[in-house]
Amino acid sequence: MKTVYFVTSNKGKFLEAKEKLSAINIEVVQNNLGYPEPQADTLEEVARFGVEDVQKRFDKPFFLEDAGLFVDSLNGFPGVYSAYVFRTIGYTGILKLLGGIDERKAVFRSVIAYKETNKNPMFFVGECRGTIVTKELGTHGFGFDPIFVPMGEKKTFAQMDINEKNRFSHRSKSLEKLIDFLKK
Amino acid sequence: MKTVYFVTSNKGKFLEAKEKLSAINIEVVQNNLGYPEPQADTLEEVARFGVEDVQKRFDKPFFLEDAGLFVDSLNGFPGVYSAYVFRTIGYTGILKLLGGIDERKAVFRSVIAYKETNKNPMFFVGECRGTIVTKELGTHGFGFDPIFVPMGEKKTFAQMDINEKNRFSHRSKSLEKLIDFLKK
Repeated sequence: MKTVYFVTSNKGKFLEAKEKLSAINIEVVQNNLGYPEPQADTLEEVARFGVEDVQKRFDKPFFLEDAGLFVDSLNGFPGVYSAYVFRTIGYTGILKLLGGIDERKAVFRSVIAYKETNKNPMFFVGECRGTIVTKELGTHGFGFDPIFVPMGEKKTFAQMDINEKNRFSHRSKSLEKLIDFLKK
Repeated sequence: MKTVYFVTSNKGKFLEAKEKLSAINIEVVQNNLGYPEPQADTLEEVARFGVEDVQKRFDKPFFLEDAGLFVDSLNGFPGVYSAYVFRTIGYTGILKLLGGIDERKAVFRSVIAYKETNKNPMFFVGECRGTIVTKELGTHGFGFDPIFVPMGEKKTFAQMDINEKNRFSHRSKSLEKLIDFLKK
């Protein structure tokens, strides 16, 4: 059984990846090494920076993931700073910023960077397009889940259980691309 | 005449520092080396990270500066991400987030990190406390200047010319502390 390391401090993300990769007989081990996240305009830049930092200190196959919510009419805000924005102004801040604005399209994006020793890093992007509701709904999940409805659906992420959310979510899509790659 | 290098891509900041330091017979030279800015909760962390990066590539005396606007009732948002927030939601975003909120205290903070070869970096903090107005006013300056009034004043930074703004501004205070240090 092959082992790959997931550099993350987020237990929920780790468990989700562990379960998905066990289906192709790959063991995922959580790694708490940590890495600095740069101020950058794209998740890819953040992930690339992380890989370059981690590879100096760790020589086994590993991946890391960065994600964010990009709201069209807010020029992509909160984007790569989603975690900080959630900690400070929360989803109510996003609802307030969108007050009186009809254009409410948004996209959740996830980027996974995977690195094996002596190989270039590989990047896998998952996206979930949808809209921002006018009032928060639901109690599942975390972050901006209560205000985001995937395209074509009626429920927010926070009104879905984890299995239902995973049918749409950005992170399950980037993980599936990683799985396709590792299967080869 | 002693020379110190200001690592910044911001011409305005450079000219301000150059003029102030010429008063104590120190020449400031702009350096466009650049450095990654980490996602961090404090300006000090951003500045420290920058110094550690630049010192690997540059062995003359240098300083760099990071600044941000911290709004009390928004839990310090936009803080260290002020530049990004300004680029995406602008000052109108801040006004919208504060809609219906009476508590409008805020502080502009500037941190300068100064480094000489084989010495520990020194940090100099400048603050300007004030309030966020309900409607933007003035055309001078940049960034969040049109919505910020220094404590005890009636005009926004954007209604002041540069000399008047410098009587209050966070950056002129951190620069003055740097000057006090360099004089010794």
